[in-house]
Order: sequence, then structure tokens, then C-alpha cells
Amino acid sequence: MTVPELFTFDVVARDPRTSARAGVFHTAHGDVETPVFMPVGTKAAVKGLTPPMLEELGAQIILSNTYHLSQRPGERLVERLGGVHGFMRWDRPVLTDSGGFQAFSLSEHFTFRDDGVEFRAVDYDGSRVAWTPERNMEIAQALGSDVCMQLDQCVGYPVERAVLERSVELSSRWAERCWRAHTREDQALFGIVQGGMDLSLRLRSLAHLESCGDFPGYGIGGYSVGEEHDVMFESLAPLASEHMPEGKPRYLMGVGNPTTLVRAVACGVDMFDCVLPTRTARTGTAFSSEGRLNLRNARFREDDRPLDERCGCPVCRRGYSRAYLHHLVRQREMGAAVLLSQHNVFFLLDLMRRARAAVLAGEYARFEADWLASEACEDY
Amino acid sequence: MTVPELFTFDVVARDPRTSARAGVFHTAHGDVETPVFMPVGTKAAVKGLTPPMLEELGAQIILSNTYHLSQRPGERLVERLGGVHGFMRWDRPVLTDSGGFQAFSLSEHFTFRDDGVEFRAVDYDGSRVAWTPERNMEIAQALGSDVCMQLDQCVGYPVERAVLERSVELSSRWAERCWRAHTREDQALFGIVQGGMDLSLRLRSLAHLESCGDFPGYGIGGYSVGEEHDVMFESLAPLASEHMPEGKPRYLMGVGNPTTLVRAVACGVDMFDCVLPTRTARTGTAFSSEGRLNLRNARFREDDRPLDERCGCPVCRRGYSRAYLHHLVRQREMGAAVLLSQHNVFFLLDLMRRARAAVLAGEYARFEADWLASEACEDY
Repeated sequence: MTVPELFTFDVVARDPRTSARAGVFHTAHGDVETPVFMPVGTKAAVKGLTPPMLEELGAQIILSNTYHLSQRPGERLVERLGGVHGFMRWDRPVLTDSGGFQAFSLSEHFTFRDDGVEFRAVDYDGSRVAWTPERNMEIAQALGSDVCMQLDQCVGYPVERAVLERSVELSSRWAERCWRAHTREDQALFGIVQGGMDLSLRLRSLAHLESCGDFPGYGIGGYSVGEEHDVMFESLAPLASEHMPEGKPRYLMGVGNPTTLVRAVACGVDMFDCVLPTRTARTGTAFSSEGRLNLRNARFREDDRPLDERCGCPVCRRGYSRAYLHHLVRQREMGAAVLLSQHNVFFLLDLMRRARAAVLAGEYARFEADWLASEACEDY
Repeated sequence: MTVPELFTFDVVARDPRTSARAGVFHTAHGDVETPVFMPVGTKAAVKGLTPPMLEELGAQIILSNTYHLSQRPGERLVERLGGVHGFMRWDRPVLTDSGGFQAFSLSEHFTFRDDGVEFRAVDYDGSRVAWTPERNMEIAQALGSDVCMQLDQCVGYPVERAVLERSVELSSRWAERCWRAHTREDQALFGIVQGGMDLSLRLRSLAHLESCGDFPGYGIGGYSVGEEHDVMFESLAPLASEHMPEGKPRYLMGVGNPTTLVRAVACGVDMFDCVLPTRTARTGTAFSSEGRLNLRNARFREDDRPLDERCGCPVCRRGYSRAYLHHLVRQREMGAAVLLSQHNVFFLLDLMRRARAAVLAGEYARFEADWLASEACEDY
């Protein structure tokens, strides 16, 4: 058997009736089978889940964040402690986001300039930071993630056309500079397609990325910023299914609600990340095949059923009842967040495993239709 | 092989130079090898640790609490959901404390009367609760723990002699009433020796318990209420080593600091419980063979060593560095509490496993002396 070249992406099956595909992405820390959901460990820790728990859930790759780790504890310290893998004792692949989204979400404290971004680290010590694409690559390379993302500018929705155009231009220039600054061979740099809900701008962004370098994969940023799901799919569907290169993974950034994942896979998206499963867990909410369950609700007080009869996660297999989880949530026991995080992360990991199996069986259209007709879909 | 009778206690080894002993306590959910530390899950959950984690750490028996579970979610609901074992999905032994300590710690809201206790459930909805020994046994039996404790009155230190005497008398009368009210055969009822720091009162309490029923084990309550450790040992040492019945387990309630455990085992104590390992974990502190480590401290920022080079816990074996744990503690990541709780609980479980091995080897005196001379001891 020959060893596949680093960061190649093998499409191993295509669904006959949708644009869904099953793939394998090769990294220095192992293969990632797609479609895949990536749990988020912003500060080198997935909230509520230890690395062994993530392994048990079957997580193949997790996210961390360049901006946050450069602030605390600093990328040079992480590098000395074995990079993000050694630091958090996680041997499987890691993807680091660039901080472009943080720039968006903290936008009142950011100033975008052609050469980069200036901002106050208000969620840390408030110090002023000057950030450039080159600095961004320096951090990502010190962290040693398997995949890093270019620095980009994400804008909200709705947004003025001029602002959107400028964000595409800025992101394109920054993509070029990231491409030139990035030298680490055991790390893949993904470009990010921007352009809001405007397909023509999305295509302009993509064309620019393809002209500036041979990126081994593409992020699709700037969705899930306030628009309705159907608005997103108006441009996402043609972008992913007709225009993005076949042999590269497509990563829809920051999207984690199950129904959107199922629909996006049908458009040919391969990778997803979101804080949703762990964040909703901390508010006492569980995903399930009956839709979302808010365990705080009094109707669960005496409910002796597991969270989801059809779920194979460690929490459902152990048989903790909804009544027990209701008790933990109401009593503000830390165990509530730990158990619900396990369940919710498993739910999305397993959804993507089943999506992959459906693609391999050539039955993704049916898988999607079944999902959209199910109770699980109703809440999302 | 014959099956041992329920709740018998076999002393399998006695140390030649101390009063330490190694035993096996037989319960309906399996054997407990002593000396043993019991992690505390007051509300049917050990803070920061799931039941599978507790199994991995080697916890043999855990605590829960009659008062708290009767308040929320109510003992009848727990009973319908399979008792405390079924409710929290834990198959190994469980001991439930009576709430006597909560009466002490919430004393401004409690009124002690001969027939029982009246109090406001201020940590819940503030409702007025009338509690008697009979009601206490009713709750414990509904919960179905393997061991339940009599209702007792715990007092502080220092305390007036008259108050102390009255607490011994009250606890004695309540012991009788608990003994008469307790009928569940798969559950052991332990009497509790009170008497503060006064050996003569302790012996009076013990004599009364021995006269009122054949308790299968004894709690030693009312220590660790503000006194210096040496003051505790002045009465505890003769009580445990000379006066308590040989063939019954002796459980020193609410004591969890490692040095006190090591010294108390030398006096013939068999069982311990304390919230200390999980509570200190939540403040960012780790037990270690070098003494306590406050991971919040800046000196750990770049420390690439594990918490304890000599520790075999899942956290130290995985190799998370002190620097990583410092980062998690500083960033208030939930993972800090989860990882430090694993480590700290393992530390006490393992300390007692090693204590048992030392007794079996006839070398407990040396084990105790080594501990007292070690860095691990200095902080406690």
C-alpha cells in the first residue's frame, strides 16, 4: 500500500442523486473521513469533554483557535509544549481557525486596515494588538495544527454591497499574503471563500483563491451570520455543488445545527464545526431524534427514558434517565454539562457517520428526505 | 466458596506495630476493601466526575445524602427510578449520610427537639420540614443505599460541656429509634459515635450504641469541626484503637485530608469520605507527592511536568502538563475541574490502596512514617 500524499483528498463515493460525497482527507495525524463534524475546543479544550472522552465519541478532528491561543497562553509556549497536540494531549488531527470570526464578533473593537487588523483584546487584558496575515501564519505554524485557515474578514447579514465587496477584496489579498507566508509542510493552509449571500461575489472570491495558490482545501465563511437557512442555501447550494473544485475538501465554517448539516452535505460540503452541541449542553438542552429536549422543563421530572432511545452514545447506553438529567440540570451539577456535551457531540458525529454511510450506499437523497420528514428536524 | 453474609466485615490483616487493619466489607452491591476513601456525590453526582470515570479511578463505594435527595428530586421518585443506584447508574456500593451534618452546618435554621429536627430548607425552597429518626429511615430505605447512617446531632468545637452531653444523649435516643425503624435487610444501618473531643463521652456514646442494637458498622462523627488535628487524635486514637469493636468497620466521617487519613488508619479507622478532593479541584488545586499545588500560580505557567511524576491516575498517565492545567484554570475552562477532580480523587483512593497494601505487608508503621516525613505531608 502506498502512503497517500499529505493533505490530498480522495473522494471515495459520490451520491447518484445529490451532490453529496464521501471522502478521506490525509493529514500528518491521520485520516479524516468525510462528511465530518469537528467539535470546537477554542482554548485547546472542548468544554465539558476531555480528550479521552472525545476519542470514545469517535471525534476524528477537533478545532482550536489561533487568536485565543496567541492571547493565552501564547503560541510560543504552546509550541515549546509540543504544539497544540502535545499541549492538550490529543494525537488526532486539529484545525485552527484564524480569528477572522472573532474579528467579526468583536467588531466594535477591531479596525480593518489593508495590511491587517488592529484590535483590543477585550476578552483578555484589553491590550492593543496589530495583526497581519503574516503574523497569523506565524501563530498557526507555531501551534502546529494540521489545518490552518487564512486570515479573512467576515461580515454580517444584511450588509451593504460595498462593505461586502470590500470584505471579499480584503480577504483575497490576505489569502495571497497567507499563501506566501505559509511554509510549514506538515500543515495545510485552507483559503476561505467569502461573499455573503451573493453568488457572483462568492465565485469572484473562489476564482481569486484558485488563482493565488493551490490550496489543499477551502473554507466557506460568512454564513450563519443572521440570515435564514433558506437564504444561505440559495447561494451555498450552487457554490458547493457546481463551482468548488472536486478534489478539495469543502468546510462550511461555524455551522452546527443538524438539519443544516444534512442539507449542506447534499450540496457537497464535507466538513463542519460549531460550538452548538457543547453550548446547548451547558444550557441543559439535548439533541434527539424527537428534536431538541430542554431538560430543565418540568415534563422531564419523572421521565425514566434515556435522552434518545435510538442513540448509541455513552450516556444513552449507560441509561441515565431524562429524570436524572433534569435533576442534574436543575441542581446546577457540573455533571449535567458533561453528560449532555457527550450526548450532543456524539449526536452530530454520528449524524455525519450515518450521512457518510448513506453516500457510500448511494442513498443520500433518501437519508436527507427521511431527516427532513423526521421529528428530529422540526426544531431546527 | 461460600458467599459471605451481608454486611459482615472480615479483618484480613492486622499491622503488627500499629492499630491499622485491612478488611473486606460485604454489601449487596459487592465487596469494599478497606481502608477505603469514598468520593462524595451529595446530590447523586460526584462533582466533575461521571460514574464511568469513578469506575476508572477505582472508586469502590461512593456517598450520597438523604437530606439533599429527599429535598430534590424526592426519595419516592428516586425509588421509582431504581433507587440511588439506578437513578445515577452506579452499580457499586453507595452510602447515604443522614443529614445530621447538614443540620449542623445549617444550624441557624434548625431547631433540635427530642422527637426530631425542624428546619427550613433554605438551600432549596425554604419550606419548613419536620424530621424524625423514623422519617430519616423511611428516606434512606426508599433510596436503597447499601449503608445508611442514623440521624445524629453534630456539634462544633469548642462547645460547652452541657451542649455536648445533650448531643450525645439526643444522638443515642435517635440511634435507638433508627434501629427500631430500620427494616430493610439489604441495607446496613450504621450507628454514629458522638462526644466531641471528650473520650469519656465518646465511650458513653459507643456503649449506648452497642446496647441498643447490633449495628453492622459505626460512624465516628463530630470531628473535623474546627479543632486542630492533634486535638482530634487525642480522643480518636484511643477510641478507635482500643474501644471500638474489632469486627465492625469504623468510618471517620467527613475527613479527607491525606495526612489525617494516613494517621487515622494507624488508629484502626477503615472508611473515610470528604468533598475535599473535588472541592479543591474546582479551586484549581491538586494533591501531589510534593504537597498541594495551586495551579493558578504563575510558577506553573511554563511547567511541562505532569501534576505528579509518581501518580498513575488517568490525568498524569495521559501527560497533561502543569502548564496546560494552569492555562485551563486561568481560562476558567470546565476541563480544569474535571481533570483535577480525577487526579485528586485518584490520589486519595490510591493512598488508601497503598495503605492497605502496607497493612497486608505488615509495614504500616513504616508507611505512616514515610508519609509524615514526605513533602506530600507538609501542607496538611
